[in-house]
Amino acid sequence: LPSLEGLGYVVDYFDRGSYRREDPVEVASLRAREDARVLLIAREMPVSRNTEKGLDPLLPMSEIAALGGAQVEAFLGLTPAGAPIFIALLPDEAVEQRADTSDGFLDRRILVVPGREDLKLVDLRSIAAGGLVTQDQGAMLAAAKALMNWHSRHRFCSNCGSPTEVAVAGWRRDCPVCKAIHFPRTDPVVIMLAVDGDACLLGRQPRFPKGMYSALAGFVEPGETIEAAVRREVREEAGVACRAVQYFASQPWPFPASLMIGCFVEAESRNLEVDRVELEDARWFSREEAVALIEGRHPDGLLAPASMAIAHHLLKRWAYKAVTFDK
Amino acid sequence: LPSLEGLGYVVDYFDRGSYRREDPVEVASLRAREDARVLLIAREMPVSRNTEKGLDPLLPMSEIAALGGAQVEAFLGLTPAGAPIFIALLPDEAVEQRADTSDGFLDRRILVVPGREDLKLVDLRSIAAGGLVTQDQGAMLAAAKALMNWHSRHRFCSNCGSPTEVAVAGWRRDCPVCKAIHFPRTDPVVIMLAVDGDACLLGRQPRFPKGMYSALAGFVEPGETIEAAVRREVREEAGVACRAVQYFASQPWPFPASLMIGCFVEAESRNLEVDRVELEDARWFSREEAVALIEGRHPDGLLAPASMAIAHHLLKRWAYKAVTFDK
Repeated sequence: LPSLEGLGYVVDYFDRGSYRREDPVEVASLRAREDARVLLIAREMPVSRNTEKGLDPLLPMSEIAALGGAQVEAFLGLTPAGAPIFIALLPDEAVEQRADTSDGFLDRRILVVPGREDLKLVDLRSIAAGGLVTQDQGAMLAAAKALMNWHSRHRFCSNCGSPTEVAVAGWRRDCPVCKAIHFPRTDPVVIMLAVDGDACLLGRQPRFPKGMYSALAGFVEPGETIEAAVRREVREEAGVACRAVQYFASQPWPFPASLMIGCFVEAESRNLEVDRVELEDARWFSREEAVALIEGRHPDGLLAPASMAIAHHLLKRWAYKAVTFDK
Repeated sequence: LPSLEGLGYVVDYFDRGSYRREDPVEVASLRAREDARVLLIAREMPVSRNTEKGLDPLLPMSEIAALGGAQVEAFLGLTPAGAPIFIALLPDEAVEQRADTSDGFLDRRILVVPGREDLKLVDLRSIAAGGLVTQDQGAMLAAAKALMNWHSRHRFCSNCGSPTEVAVAGWRRDCPVCKAIHFPRTDPVVIMLAVDGDACLLGRQPRFPKGMYSALAGFVEPGETIEAAVRREVREEAGVACRAVQYFASQPWPFPASLMIGCFVEAESRNLEVDRVELEDARWFSREEAVALIEGRHPDGLLAPASMAIAHHLLKRWAYKAVTFDK
């Protein structure tokens, strides 16, 4: 059975200590501990220490004050070794854009912390794609980015328009005027490999890297099951009616706050009617082609998504092992 | 294999016509069709016509104006017969509370539409529990309630506090000031039956009906997989560490906008440490007891959740058929 090796942002178990969030005294005492560490987010990017051994996103708590203070702080949980982990959202002004001339190009711009050459901002996709942090750290950073993106876009009450206040150790925003309480949002997305016997359906969006084909995907809508969303998306995007859905695995996808729900689905036919607004192309691939995509040797130079993405693992599982549908 | 008979709010496929939402001219022409129907929501409850044959939630479009106009309208999709279905949110003032003396009690209050004895407001839980509408209509009402609840709680921009405007046929709210766009929210919730050999774990919240035990459940948090959320919730609520997770099925749960993701999970032990804030009790049930719960003949008078809820079907599947864990 192929493993999910390389899948980004995923960790089996992490103690979020959510039962501690309600107690400000306990949170303050965890924050004061010497082994406490903070994940810093600025302009949606993690700020890490650039060491000889690579990136270290777990910084001392003192960095919050050193970098001008946090807009929002949250308690994320405890590492397996018991160290408390916090998240802090820095103000946009804590970082600045600079031209990056390191590779000879003048038009590339990067974000830096002025006066702190030891710190580096690297976007979370590159971190996962390059395996630049440990699996656990990648999962923590995914939570940090999703939560802080929610805070930065939810400073006001959607119910009455008043400014809201951070509550419950960064896991809630409360409205002091209408008393509404607001929880972080996570958007379920279905991503599915439609299969028909020895062929599977992949599509490409115009924004994809050249030659890359991936599984179709779309948001689960209010009042929909996962299964109905899977069938609807394949029908809407490729014109293919589908039957049974088989769940595969899930992945947090913090761009900005999705939960990817990977599934296989049984197509009723191979006739395509591609929605050219959503997709540049969609086509059926044989099992041999799927194996070639995964192994990076497709005769037409076509590419599978990288192993950090669940689409890679859907394709790989199907390519190397038959998928059976229960019902 | 036990079926999911009775599971509420679920339909295999419904043409949401989401590709039509962007075109106001097409939406207006669908709205003008003679076979167009509307689902009315007032104070979070569906308004149905009370006929001899039962409740009919699919009302003529003219009812919107007759009842004082809508705060929000949305295009939901097309029935299998091709009829366009809309949703309208009525202002709170369109309905009023009245004492219900029909069963001899004076302290029960119901919502009514003044002067319209032909219309009836019944909450969506009672509709699903009683099978008061067809399966398709139940699913449409779940979408209607979730979407309209989102609208009524999101009249202001969470990014800047300005009033927002309804867009894309009711499926988006746009901010005219900061230009932020806001999509309806759906909250993924894991609900899981932890099992260890011939025993399964059920708990009861203080708010449950007397004697009812159900599967544990909780929201998926930012940066979490479904699998990690399942393990975290069982550990937090019952103190039980878990291993492999097996997906079962999903269900929309529009109270206010959840997506229930039903799973089985393999417990590592039967030692319990129950979180008494979340749960009044949690205990292991044998397979014989589980069958008795489903069949309504538990010796201590304990009860399973009703078949409208996915917890019922998780328990039923495990009670009558072994669950195997892949990995």
